[in-house]
Amino acid sequence: MDVPSILGKITLFEDLPERQLQRIASIVIPKRFDKGESLFFEGQPATGFYAIGTGRVKVYKVSLEGKEQILHLFGSGEVIGEVPVFAGGRYPAHAEALEPSELLFIPRDGFIELVKADATLALNMLALLSIRLRQFTHLIENLSLKEVPGRLAAYLLYMSDGSGGGDLVELDISKGQLASLLGTIPETLSRILGKMSQQGLLRVQGRKIALTDREGLEKLAQGGKLAP
Amino acid sequence: MDVPSILGKITLFEDLPERQLQRIASIVIPKRFDKGESLFFEGQPATGFYAIGTGRVKVYKVSLEGKEQILHLFGSGEVIGEVPVFAGGRYPAHAEALEPSELLFIPRDGFIELVKADATLALNMLALLSIRLRQFTHLIENLSLKEVPGRLAAYLLYMSDGSGGGDLVELDISKGQLASLLGTIPETLSRILGKMSQQGLLRVQGRKIALTDREGLEKLAQGGKLAP
Repeated sequence: MDVPSILGKITLFEDLPERQLQRIASIVIPKRFDKGESLFFEGQPATGFYAIGTGRVKVYKVSLEGKEQILHLFGSGEVIGEVPVFAGGRYPAHAEALEPSELLFIPRDGFIELVKADATLALNMLALLSIRLRQFTHLIENLSLKEVPGRLAAYLLYMSDGSGGGDLVELDISKGQLASLLGTIPETLSRILGKMSQQGLLRVQGRKIALTDREGLEKLAQGGKLAP
Repeated sequence: MDVPSILGKITLFEDLPERQLQRIASIVIPKRFDKGESLFFEGQPATGFYAIGTGRVKVYKVSLEGKEQILHLFGSGEVIGEVPVFAGGRYPAHAEALEPSELLFIPRDGFIELVKADATLALNMLALLSIRLRQFTHLIENLSLKEVPGRLAAYLLYMSDGSGGGDLVELDISKGQLASLLGTIPETLSRILGKMSQQGLLRVQGRKIALTDREGLEKLAQGGKLAP
């Protein structure tokens, strides 16, 4: 296995400077798994995470009745178990190879030593993840802008009807809850509220929202598009 | 300003253990900005990043013709400039307060010292960002599943027609490029390809895709939904 080249393809490490990739490569333990072989079990201390060179891995839970529920299938270039390793906890599910797979094991101890010796390694990884989060936030925003304004309009009209048809609606859930109800994230919801407010459809007053253009909101709720 | 409580509301820091929040609070410099006051200019070394307690900040570029282009508006609980600070570069744009704002400045030097003294601070932040990326990946997947299979089917049929109508289409762009063309991310595209393959619509052979059910693909391209 060409360890540095596999590492370089992993989101968590891509764009790291060569010398940092080399240092990570130096602590990596390449492991081969047969079909059906376990990587780890739920509840085990998370002593390291895996990067997939070739092959596929399923991450799954087993219900009280013994039924297996697959949470996620991972393939080449993806990383498994990094969250509990970073957070210093236990693996939250089981993982098993679905086919003969070549994996890289990155042990937690060695990784912590690297970060202690070179804080910029962790900072560079934080930068990579922050950039990716920004990109994802944008993408979610673009995807959400198509449908979320309409769903939000429908929700507000429904709330207004429920409270006797007044034009002032009081949100009884947090913005975070409302965002996830509408299938988006709080940042995007705020921006959509801002846009709708600019366009005179509503006015936000803390937890209260004044419906200032019911007709416009109804059009939006019936599948109309929010002006850009 | 109640520094720890503001810090605790910021994605980058939320769920950090109390003692680590306190350490970050100890290096924070609270700053007040008037409306129109600059936080930083494009090209300046990124000596620290800001967390917004109250107020709003615009991040913008200025074109060669002197025209201002707003890239992003930030509000309470959001963070500005963390990417160049982590990566050790320069601010990529200008930032200016849109109203009187109370901000927390987290200096890069102090932050690096904290990470050197306590590697688990960086690891906990990596865990937080990794969790958020997982959540965002899920959300993008849910949002993409509605439209991406149809767009993918349309793209494949178009490619097939372009190459004389054969049932074997060779991708002339990378999966990453195809994903962004279709408005999603490579992970989700792989899963959609996997689903479409399971349902007999196509078969992936490296960079080639065999269209095994043209009729099904045409239905999908015309707005049909992929079975779950």
